[in-house]
Amino acid sequence: YGKNTIKFLRLHREGKKHFVKEVEVCTHLRLTSAQEYLDGDNSLVIPTDTMKNIVLVLAKKNGIPTLEQFAIDICKHFMTSFCQVAYVKTYVQEVPWQRLHENGVPHIHGFICVPDGIRFCEAEQCRNGPLVVFAGIKDLKLMKTTQSGFTGFYKDEHTTLPERHDRILCGELFCKWSYGECRDFDFDSIWNKIRECILEAFSGPPDCGEYSPSYQKTVNCIQMLILSKVSQVQVIEVILNNTFYNVVDMKNLGLTNDKEVLVPVEAPYGSCACTLARKKFLEA
Amino acid sequence: YGKNTIKFLRLHREGKKHFVKEVEVCTHLRLTSAQEYLDGDNSLVIPTDTMKNIVLVLAKKNGIPTLEQFAIDICKHFMTSFCQVAYVKTYVQEVPWQRLHENGVPHIHGFICVPDGIRFCEAEQCRNGPLVVFAGIKDLKLMKTTQSGFTGFYKDEHTTLPERHDRILCGELFCKWSYGECRDFDFDSIWNKIRECILEAFSGPPDCGEYSPSYQKTVNCIQMLILSKVSQVQVIEVILNNTFYNVVDMKNLGLTNDKEVLVPVEAPYGSCACTLARKKFLEA
Amino acid sequence: YGKNTIKFLRLHREGKKHFVKEVEVCTHLRLTSAQEYLDGDNSLVIPTDTMKNIVLVLAKKNGIPTLEQFAIDICKHFMTSFCQVAYVKTYVQEVPWQRLHENGVPHIHGFICVPDGIRFCEAEQCRNGPLVVFAGIKDLKLMKTTQSGFTGFYKDEHTTLPERHDRILCGELFCKWSYGECRDFDFDSIWNKIRECILEAFSGPPDCGEYSPSYQKTVNCIQMLILSKVSQVQVIEVILNNTFYNVVDMKNLGLTNDKEVLVPVEAPYGSCACTLARKKFLEA
Amino acid sequence: YGKNTIKFLRLHREGKKHFVKEVEVCTHLRLTSAQEYLDGDNSLVIPTDTMKNIVLVLAKKNGIPTLEQFAIDICKHFMTSFCQVAYVKTYVQEVPWQRLHENGVPHIHGFICVPDGIRFCEAEQCRNGPLVVFAGIKDLKLMKTTQSGFTGFYKDEHTTLPERHDRILCGELFCKWSYGECRDFDFDSIWNKIRECILEAFSGPPDCGEYSPSYQKTVNCIQMLILSKVSQVQVIEVILNNTFYNVVDMKNLGLTNDKEVLVPVEAPYGSCACTLARKKFLEA
Repeated sequence: YGKNTIKFLRLHREGKKHFVKEVEVCTHLRLTSAQEYLDGDNSLVIPTDTMKNIVLVLAKKNGIPTLEQFAIDICKHFMTSFCQVAYVKTYVQEVPWQRLHENGVPHIHGFICVPDGIRFCEAEQCRNGPLVVFAGIKDLKLMKTTQSGFTGFYKDEHTTLPERHDRILCGELFCKWSYGECRDFDFDSIWNKIRECILEAFSGPPDCGEYSPSYQKTVNCIQMLILSKVSQVQVIEVILNNTFYNVVDMKNLGLTNDKEVLVPVEAPYGSCACTLARKKFLEA
Repeated sequence: YGKNTIKFLRLHREGKKHFVKEVEVCTHLRLTSAQEYLDGDNSLVIPTDTMKNIVLVLAKKNGIPTLEQFAIDICKHFMTSFCQVAYVKTYVQEVPWQRLHENGVPHIHGFICVPDGIRFCEAEQCRNGPLVVFAGIKDLKLMKTTQSGFTGFYKDEHTTLPERHDRILCGELFCKWSYGECRDFDFDSIWNKIRECILEAFSGPPDCGEYSPSYQKTVNCIQMLILSKVSQVQVIEVILNNTFYNVVDMKNLGLTNDKEVLVPVEAPYGSCACTLARKKFLEA
Repeated sequence: YGKNTIKFLRLHREGKKHFVKEVEVCTHLRLTSAQEYLDGDNSLVIPTDTMKNIVLVLAKKNGIPTLEQFAIDICKHFMTSFCQVAYVKTYVQEVPWQRLHENGVPHIHGFICVPDGIRFCEAEQCRNGPLVVFAGIKDLKLMKTTQSGFTGFYKDEHTTLPERHDRILCGELFCKWSYGECRDFDFDSIWNKIRECILEAFSGPPDCGEYSPSYQKTVNCIQMLILSKVSQVQVIEVILNNTFYNVVDMKNLGLTNDKEVLVPVEAPYGSCACTLARKKFLEA
Repeated sequence: YGKNTIKFLRLHREGKKHFVKEVEVCTHLRLTSAQEYLDGDNSLVIPTDTMKNIVLVLAKKNGIPTLEQFAIDICKHFMTSFCQVAYVKTYVQEVPWQRLHENGVPHIHGFICVPDGIRFCEAEQCRNGPLVVFAGIKDLKLMKTTQSGFTGFYKDEHTTLPERHDRILCGELFCKWSYGECRDFDFDSIWNKIRECILEAFSGPPDCGEYSPSYQKTVNCIQMLILSKVSQVQVIEVILNNTFYNVVDMKNLGLTNDKEVLVPVEAPYGSCACTLARKKFLEA
């Protein structure tokens, strides 16, 4: 049980310059007891209202240096303060406020919301177990208008899809990676580096792109690039929900449509998910 | 990988009387191969477009006798038709069309959408493993305006929640149960019986209700009633996302508000989840 | 300016039996002044927070006998209490709680949310003008699986739609009617009667239905029936957003699909709106 | 009647460099006839399916030089091709794809979706009337963390809001302006200039900001700046839906919260709307 979508803004001031972190926190616990379910005995139940208070108090006391550190702080508090807690999990998601700029000059207290990929993280711990940290990005919508195809696939009597050598590849990405046991990482710069890896692996070199033979292969490229460039990542899960763009048949309208006008097909949509781990991580 | 939100309507006619089932299907596969991820070799990949075609063809050929039977049909088709499939999972959700009535007379082809709890089911199978069937109800919003309290809970320096002996209990229910290995059940009548159990356990006898000391206990009551009344259910998971109703303090406005005007607090919201299984199921 | 989505629940008790009305209120004002915009002089500005308080206080004092009466109460309060108010408009929408029943017995305090058409109303008044009341229903999804066609329409070089003599007619209805100047009507029973008219005009007699040659004609039938049966309605606006159901072509899959499997097309969707008034109302 | 959410992507290629415009179009007509409503005579009805085809064909033939020009093209087509059209209105909204950059180098065919304010436009025309063009931005979320207050407002017995000299001002902006009769403007650069005006008027100088005494005054500042800097704008409507941030009271938790931890209040929310026109426009 737990409390979801605890939303708040943490405002930090350095002189006249303001810094904001607005987040949404979900904190869930599993207790060692069962009496609250079986007997309605609440004596060990930490109210979700108290959980909310704890999250707000920690934000007040420690600030939010990084999302990950904040999630770690919350988990540690529950594990050390309550002996009836068997397991704690905390999810933190950021509202994507960016500082405004006027003619290149950063504004001291003006912000704009730019939701081009939402940053989140998760920390979890079982009693007597390690504190494990995850981070990720979601709702990241990317498109490449060429250098994508899908051919040579399995065919049977239910196959009507034609082979395509040049199609639009468009999708919404969800990436979540594990840092393994909690250590003192520079979570902000790692997150930014991974975001760059995703964009690079998805789109290829800026002057020519890189051919994608399938969603599966693109997912794998993203994972391989991250694992090769970011040593702190142990496991990486990628889900790519794709929107197919249908070339409109204009023959009946007397026109030849050379992939100029395309209609997005939002339902049904394909989905491709893969989790990849380092060998040494699996061996451990 | 797979195809999500394959939406379609299956129309069945008996003379002039029409029957509709509109559903949303998600079908996911795991293949035995990895070459599509590593090498971009698609030769074993069943396109998600083909998956969609198969779902539609099965609906045409077999109809949708029950959601569960349809999910079973889909899983069986993939397992038997494609030897490269290692695992298949199918989710089916129903659009809640109900027949219209005029002065008690059922209409032969008129329907209205009544979303008071959405029926869904899931079937999954690993190669060489059993076909397992789940069913459930979601988005079921219930409220009782008394016979609910929350007292005697754990308190520390972060506790500000007062004890409450009479509060509104309101929440959105998600229930999912397992039938264990696939057998020839009357899925429709079982589903209706379980829905009745949920309403009964949540609200208690119509003339007096039944006191709920916590969300946890109410969740447990629902589970216990279902397990006692519906022998086909092996495991049952319940998630209750509650909306807290705050009694508006009207002292500053010169009024005494005796729980007459309450404001719903939608964020943050508490959540309580529990999974309960039969002993013999766990022993098996 | 104003306050939107003021959500609250009004609980009314008669002995042990409870009655709930949960509503969402939006109240907007126009002031006679402009100084708050031009000079930042707030001396005549009624804070939206005060507006919220007023709505809650009126709910506490008067209850919500009907949505319409409550909207009237709010408008009257603003018009009589604040001479700087030039115009007031109040919108009230109901959360569709229905009393639970167990084996036909109504529950004294248990409720279920059944969103099969949302009831709303609006009241507005200009200073020195009449208080005008509107009511309506929205998000009402209806379907008839036959007795609908679309033929004989205008054709040109951009027409690719075939004539159809038997199609599914499915749409989401929005109806809003005016009672003209505020009088002492039985708003609840009128609303229920109009809802019945809509269902009847949409679907036709239960044993055979009634042929619809177009969305336009169906919209008109709904309006004509309401105007003929409900004398209190002066003007009626209907918007019908339709979902087209596409018969899946299964020729390539070796099957003949006799309108058995259809796919809903949610975007783009057609929309048909019409406002109809009584002659004497227009003459007045 | 009309067709809503006609979604498509127009791909334009210059050598290897690709340009995308993905849009959502709504086109509505009013016919001179009433026979389709009264008699079910469809002979003058242009099917919404044909409307969709026309939109796609115009996109294919003319491309989308600007949203506004495309909306104008659509209106002109309907007015000149169909004498039964009494009125046409077209709304065009853009999916905010932005070109990807790698280390500052623009990608030739890679794009990312960045929804930080959605661009839209509208064109409408009555038969024998002028073609009028509107443009706008919506879903633009801005925040300033100081230089905002609300004092000196009207008080009565329902007022509980304290005066605030330093609060967070946060809101979602909707701006729509009229260009008056259609002329040959550089719609893209005007739109960008207006967006800059909004950000500047909302947040003030980057090194110090500018004090806002109310939402009303901020709305007015935005309008005044646009009217003074952009001569092509005749009328401008601004709606500011604000999210109030509540400073969490931590006294009971033994802490002093100096506006460091704030909770957003999403419902109810205040709304402030104002339409401002040039004098000479009103006189005309």
